[in-house]
Amino acid sequence: MSASKVTPWEVQGNIDYEKIIKEFGVSKIDQKLLERLEKHAKKKNKPLHHLLRRNIFFAHRDLKFILDEYEKGNKFFLYTGRAPSGHTHIGHLVPWMLTKWLQEVFDVELWFQFPDEEKFLFKEDLTLEDTEKFTQENMLDVIALGFDPKKTFFLVDTKHADLMYKEALKVSKKITFSTAKSAFGFTNDQNLGAIFYTAMQAVPSFLPCVIHKKKIPCLIPHAIDQDPHFRVSRDVIPKIGHHKPASIQCRFLPGLAGMQSDGKMSSSLDHTTIYTTDDPKTIKKKINKYAFSGGQSTVEEHRKKGGNPQVDTSYIWLTFFEEDDKKLEKIYQDYKSGKLLSGEIKAILIEKLTSLLQEHQKKREKARRNIDTFIFKKT
Amino acid sequence: MSASKVTPWEVQGNIDYEKIIKEFGVSKIDQKLLERLEKHAKKKNKPLHHLLRRNIFFAHRDLKFILDEYEKGNKFFLYTGRAPSGHTHIGHLVPWMLTKWLQEVFDVELWFQFPDEEKFLFKEDLTLEDTEKFTQENMLDVIALGFDPKKTFFLVDTKHADLMYKEALKVSKKITFSTAKSAFGFTNDQNLGAIFYTAMQAVPSFLPCVIHKKKIPCLIPHAIDQDPHFRVSRDVIPKIGHHKPASIQCRFLPGLAGMQSDGKMSSSLDHTTIYTTDDPKTIKKKINKYAFSGGQSTVEEHRKKGGNPQVDTSYIWLTFFEEDDKKLEKIYQDYKSGKLLSGEIKAILIEKLTSLLQEHQKKREKARRNIDTFIFKKT
Repeated sequence: MSASKVTPWEVQGNIDYEKIIKEFGVSKIDQKLLERLEKHAKKKNKPLHHLLRRNIFFAHRDLKFILDEYEKGNKFFLYTGRAPSGHTHIGHLVPWMLTKWLQEVFDVELWFQFPDEEKFLFKEDLTLEDTEKFTQENMLDVIALGFDPKKTFFLVDTKHADLMYKEALKVSKKITFSTAKSAFGFTNDQNLGAIFYTAMQAVPSFLPCVIHKKKIPCLIPHAIDQDPHFRVSRDVIPKIGHHKPASIQCRFLPGLAGMQSDGKMSSSLDHTTIYTTDDPKTIKKKINKYAFSGGQSTVEEHRKKGGNPQVDTSYIWLTFFEEDDKKLEKIYQDYKSGKLLSGEIKAILIEKLTSLLQEHQKKREKARRNIDTFIFKKT
Repeated sequence: MSASKVTPWEVQGNIDYEKIIKEFGVSKIDQKLLERLEKHAKKKNKPLHHLLRRNIFFAHRDLKFILDEYEKGNKFFLYTGRAPSGHTHIGHLVPWMLTKWLQEVFDVELWFQFPDEEKFLFKEDLTLEDTEKFTQENMLDVIALGFDPKKTFFLVDTKHADLMYKEALKVSKKITFSTAKSAFGFTNDQNLGAIFYTAMQAVPSFLPCVIHKKKIPCLIPHAIDQDPHFRVSRDVIPKIGHHKPASIQCRFLPGLAGMQSDGKMSSSLDHTTIYTTDDPKTIKKKINKYAFSGGQSTVEEHRKKGGNPQVDTSYIWLTFFEEDDKKLEKIYQDYKSGKLLSGEIKAILIEKLTSLLQEHQKKREKARRNIDTFIFKKT
């Protein structure tokens, strides 16, 4: 296993999720929690989400507290986000898919942050004009997923700073540079904005309480690399009068070249990334050319020995995007037995993603006229 | 001479201004610059301001550039401010008095910042509710000085963060923690907001250019302790497309107990501070009780040896507030010769400050209805 590194700005190597659970101090999502979630889903005639069934959302902090409160009649709100620096890729969709399911099952508000300063501060060449452009583009993808426009509120850090900066100050006063240094690996060469940024990321986890003038629990679905932010802010937020935000955390969707070489999918590795705006030809070309295969070198050998779905990117991606358990199970068995060839499993993935993204792109275009509806406005 | 220390958050001991000029790298305001300023004042039928005549504003950065540009027809704007943490004292009025004169002589805009987060971040016990209250109170004092309401714009950091945070980010990206550490003496125990703050203080020195979409020079009248902020930001601001802000810097008004014990006047030393809201009885009591005297211990001795105006707080304060050079000269000579007793020079100061502050307090009360006129609004 190669050495791995997980910070909000870097995910490298083959991730050992058991190790992360220990290191980060998060808890596994156990059977009991899954059953409680399933019980609530049933009331809305929904199955447990496949990202939960398949342990892709694998860890949490205080999810029990969220469900306890909910069952006492005290609804939570959801908070997730996207730091704009490029086009949305399908890895970004993963936490949002579960977020949408949670909004539907629990009928709760979603506060969606677009921290348009984050990548500007951490990437030398990125300008605020770049991040502004991508904020608009990324919003389309979020809207296309079908969040409830009456219960979904977009926050853009630079635009909503008149609400957010004041709250970030309260958080920032309680975090020293030493703490940020150890949580994020900062050095003295870090710029001042980057040092302050984590305080801004903390704000949406309690801003709705300030706006609604009410203590409301917060649940944050996010990829595990964002945990250091909340690890720091969870210590601080109760000191300024709000609930510790709870969270539910997912694994990374690997890049096409597989976890060993790519870590999580990244926009900086263009060819092994599928964007939500990719056309069918591009999807086909990228998958056929770059998807790491768990198959054998020849058809004969593959028929005899079978493939290894556990390292095959096409199979791994299907676990994220093919909702039907039976279909997936059949693909797994057929690939493992050698009945399904590498080219064939790629074709299944290509078909799945093409239809998913063509549908998404239609909704994405329609979303252009609805952006303003979703942006939070003070009344 | 006792050891002195000058940072934006601490001014201690007897200040050696010659040493500061060298250490801070500022320039003396020379005769040539004074004559140029006087020439412009004459056009408005005004004398050179007594704070300039008396070398209380003693240093500058790039004042020549400001006058060169002005004489080419390129007007500058003024920027000064007040970090609210308590009531305004008469020491705060000093740079504002010159600022008002500059606005009148050059007919220019003034952008007045109320960084309502600064003292919150640097003082453990201060809340944002406290600073909000004092922002309102301090605004009254600024308005009472008679700035042109059509050309004066108040910026409140937490309220105008939707304009300011974005610009502060651009500044902050170009300042490392190392730089802030050496400029402000930060340690790793500094909180994240305090580390970021200097970027917010830089913003009003170019925000009017962003708003007016025009490159306009900026002149900042301020007490010398604020120089470290601008020393850092002057390196950065040209890199983001604006002129280096120029500045003109004044000495500190000492506390009543004198420079040796008090450093600059400070709201944390209540009894040696005169607030703009103090009533005549309080003014009289404080000055009679606490003003450090340069007089002799007995009347007889004083008549014989004379007093020392240079260490006498009453005399020093009169150099800040008595505009009439002839009156001041007479007081100096009479005190030095022993003709004027310590009680008598105190009485002169009491009369001067009482009439000045009674007038100020009337205008201050009238200002309550005008606050909104002065707060900058995007159109």
